[in-house]
Amino acid sequence: MTPAPTGKPKVLVIMGSVRAGRHCPALAAWVAGIGQAETGLDFELVDLAAWPLPMDDEPNIPATGLYMQPHTRKWSEKIAEADAFVFVSPQYNWGYPAVLKNAIDHCHREWHGKPLLIVTYGGHGGDKCAAQLRQVAEGLDMRLVPTMPALPLARGMILGAAITPDTDFREQIPQVRQGCRELAAMAPAP
Amino acid sequence: MTPAPTGKPKVLVIMGSVRAGRHCPALAAWVAGIGQAETGLDFELVDLAAWPLPMDDEPNIPATGLYMQPHTRKWSEKIAEADAFVFVSPQYNWGYPAVLKNAIDHCHREWHGKPLLIVTYGGHGGDKCAAQLRQVAEGLDMRLVPTMPALPLARGMILGAAITPDTDFREQIPQVRQGCRELAAMAPAP
Repeated sequence: MTPAPTGKPKVLVIMGSVRAGRHCPALAAWVAGIGQAETGLDFELVDLAAWPLPMDDEPNIPATGLYMQPHTRKWSEKIAEADAFVFVSPQYNWGYPAVLKNAIDHCHREWHGKPLLIVTYGGHGGDKCAAQLRQVAEGLDMRLVPTMPALPLARGMILGAAITPDTDFREQIPQVRQGCRELAAMAPAP
Repeated sequence: MTPAPTGKPKVLVIMGSVRAGRHCPALAAWVAGIGQAETGLDFELVDLAAWPLPMDDEPNIPATGLYMQPHTRKWSEKIAEADAFVFVSPQYNWGYPAVLKNAIDHCHREWHGKPLLIVTYGGHGGDKCAAQLRQVAEGLDMRLVPTMPALPLARGMILGAAITPDTDFREQIPQVRQGCRELAAMAPAP
């Protein structure tokens, strides 16, 4: 999923969960595949499990851009080089997962002005998580895609049963396509 | 601040920030002092920096109560033994800090039915963080104190200038007192 430089806008698909047994990699890859086919933009998966960012390990507030830790600088560069974002995230206790908020809060200006598509999943699709993430993204001056695809998980899926996105979320495919098209329309021209 | 068992309701004052240079310990101690004087309940400070809880390190969802890690079990016992809570938290990017959400999400039933006072701080007092935390607490069936003290930080304080709560937040003292009285009224009888 990491394409060579193409001159096309780069979309990072950031996974909101690092839990063992998570559905996030399957769902994020599925969303990225739809986005790639629908828009032709470069979609790249970002697994936060591969980005250890200790919580609040920086002495300065991120708005200053003065990062002391090598991992923060690397993360900052990763976000700065991207043109648009998709968050694919579970809902935890009517809110967003700590690991996603931690990754967001490690940067500041790197997010400004960039388009964001939010895709959530949960017992009721994760709409409360999406609304809270939307407020955070507004605080960071991101440009929000109007469509917010929400994938409802059956009880068995929540407890760990495997997911086949193309069949389990067939009804949501048009919404994901629509969100990706809106994202591409908002992304900067190549 | 860790009192011997007294038969009085135990209130844990949980700090929402672990950042170097944070104002949270000073503010949490100030809130706990006001609460102790106002209500006579046992207020105990909880510094999440002393509670390393790796993000999403448990294979099962917390609602099952099946914890595999010793640190999760210890945290679960800590929350289970408390009668009421105060969250003292900064607002980060119009939301709550990852470290606080991570500590919340590591448990589930341990929070149910218990009263919670939310005290926030930030450039505008942190009211957006308070509202999001309120939604999370509702998702966990906690009983929310109506008063939500919000402490506005001056620009210099945000950048690290020292805080003297009794003078800097003199105007908010009645609100903190009121919140603590409401918390005590909602806490179970000794």
